[in-house]
Amino acid sequence: MAGTRRPGEFEAIARWLAPLARHAPESLGLLDDAAVLSPAPGRGLALTVDTMVEGIHFVADDPPGDIARKLLRVNLSDLAAMAAEPRWCLLAMSLGESQDESWLEAFAEGLGADLESFGVALIGGDTTATPGPLTLSLTALGEVGKGGAVLRSTAAAEQDVWVTGTLGDAALALALMQGRAGGLTLGDFPCLQGRYRVPQPRTALGPRLAGIATAMLDISDGLAADLGHICAASRVGADVAFEALPLSDEARRVLDACPELAASVAAGGDDYELLFTAAPGEAARIEALGAETGVPVARIGATRAGEGVVVRDPSGSPMALESSGWRHF
Amino acid sequence: MAGTRRPGEFEAIARWLAPLARHAPESLGLLDDAAVLSPAPGRGLALTVDTMVEGIHFVADDPPGDIARKLLRVNLSDLAAMAAEPRWCLLAMSLGESQDESWLEAFAEGLGADLESFGVALIGGDTTATPGPLTLSLTALGEVGKGGAVLRSTAAAEQDVWVTGTLGDAALALALMQGRAGGLTLGDFPCLQGRYRVPQPRTALGPRLAGIATAMLDISDGLAADLGHICAASRVGADVAFEALPLSDEARRVLDACPELAASVAAGGDDYELLFTAAPGEAARIEALGAETGVPVARIGATRAGEGVVVRDPSGSPMALESSGWRHF
Repeated sequence: MAGTRRPGEFEAIARWLAPLARHAPESLGLLDDAAVLSPAPGRGLALTVDTMVEGIHFVADDPPGDIARKLLRVNLSDLAAMAAEPRWCLLAMSLGESQDESWLEAFAEGLGADLESFGVALIGGDTTATPGPLTLSLTALGEVGKGGAVLRSTAAAEQDVWVTGTLGDAALALALMQGRAGGLTLGDFPCLQGRYRVPQPRTALGPRLAGIATAMLDISDGLAADLGHICAASRVGADVAFEALPLSDEARRVLDACPELAASVAAGGDDYELLFTAAPGEAARIEALGAETGVPVARIGATRAGEGVVVRDPSGSPMALESSGWRHF
Repeated sequence: MAGTRRPGEFEAIARWLAPLARHAPESLGLLDDAAVLSPAPGRGLALTVDTMVEGIHFVADDPPGDIARKLLRVNLSDLAAMAAEPRWCLLAMSLGESQDESWLEAFAEGLGADLESFGVALIGGDTTATPGPLTLSLTALGEVGKGGAVLRSTAAAEQDVWVTGTLGDAALALALMQGRAGGLTLGDFPCLQGRYRVPQPRTALGPRLAGIATAMLDISDGLAADLGHICAASRVGADVAFEALPLSDEARRVLDACPELAASVAAGGDDYELLFTAAPGEAARIEALGAETGVPVARIGATRAGEGVVVRDPSGSPMALESSGWRHF
């Protein structure tokens, strides 16, 4: 019933991680039993938690800073999808034998940089040893925009379907890593590799879509599956044109060489882009918000009465897609 | 990069765990990217997270319901120590191969019973597979009492030191398990075993001590170490009389047989009792609150100018104690 770590590592943790929390008054200097925050009056608080396990969600030799940033960002993406502004987080770490002082330093450096750039305060956490793989769990809290939270279940028929950024980059990176892209290798596509390792949560745009988007989520299971989630929860159907899907230059190059990977764009996963619906009359406002926040937005289709999601290829035929994106579980 | 679990276990999780959250409107039916709650206007929100790892904090064959209850209760104890009323929680589970459907059922049953009895709503979570040991992380949220949160750093000299319940039960249970109590065995002391497995967080009393207790925490590292934490943070010292420490009948029987285990009572750990300071004039009010909430309270010593904690034996001599209680890390 004793931990597996060497003496002195408490001090390493205090040295590298505690400073990330110390400037947040809510953390009470990490000296107390709990953090205490004062929510803004009259605004909802959005909460989400995500866990990442070595060997399941990342590999042992991924850069520690990237692991930290991905852990934070997947949670911030969930908050953005609720139209919430990210504010606070708590970090639970179960550290294995190979997380030594230099690992902790690099992890803290990556986390600290992202906390600062996203304006999020680390206000608490727990660190323990594990005889197993490194396991990280982050709870993120955000303040819901004045227009209220945007749910998945409130889309209606005859509305536009929108998506941010570009789709398929992470799924194509995985295909390249797994040798499923002919002779192409991941090394030739640095942007795809980056998208796979460190997603870009749309925290600037998400909260601005409160009162405009009728339903929203962030794409983690793949466009087709996640649009299916909105449709099922809202009891509508949707049609999407493959040609309308926004692609990065690198993704386009991969698809030119391997057209059979098109399904990875429409049904892959880990895009962490916002997918949302809105009345057609909101199009100009959404374009303007995208420009203002520096987040590309693209209209990719429309909802309709009925059920199910159809992605049509350039000839107008429904594409054959795996019914769901990837699952980590 | 794929999970290690068998198909169909998603359904088992949905079957056993999702119902625990469904009646809480804040969970949004677990259908969305985040939970959304509405904090009470003008009241602080206390947040804490604790992780339990198989092989470190519990053993694989502990009853699953007890593991669930301990996980929740150690967090509720932290909230009580801030004078916060427990309200919500999020659960992150990394399940190993041996957590089958019957394990999940028993875990959910224990968790559900405790959620109900403590009035806490499960509003979100994350479940993933792990190739390693079962790892559980729970984030708990509570509303701070109207008198505000009670910190560790605000004790003053010449105040009473109080403790709830009884001390040493968990540490003596561990000594019995490890064969350090002569010929005595744990089987003869069912209450000690229960205290070790499932702590009793003082959620009814903690919030009532807002504005009365000058400093407070819950004992997890052992009385001496944790009183040391209050003293160090508040820049005072404290003297405690061993004879004043509240003992259970079973603990007293163990000490009668093995007087050398006295140090386990004063310096053991995992008591999860509240330890707090208060002005001497508050004694009657504290006794009345203890009686009203059904939580035994005992005055065990006093703070003084200076620093350090001294626990005196019946002859008035300072007891020799390990400098800190147990550490899981």
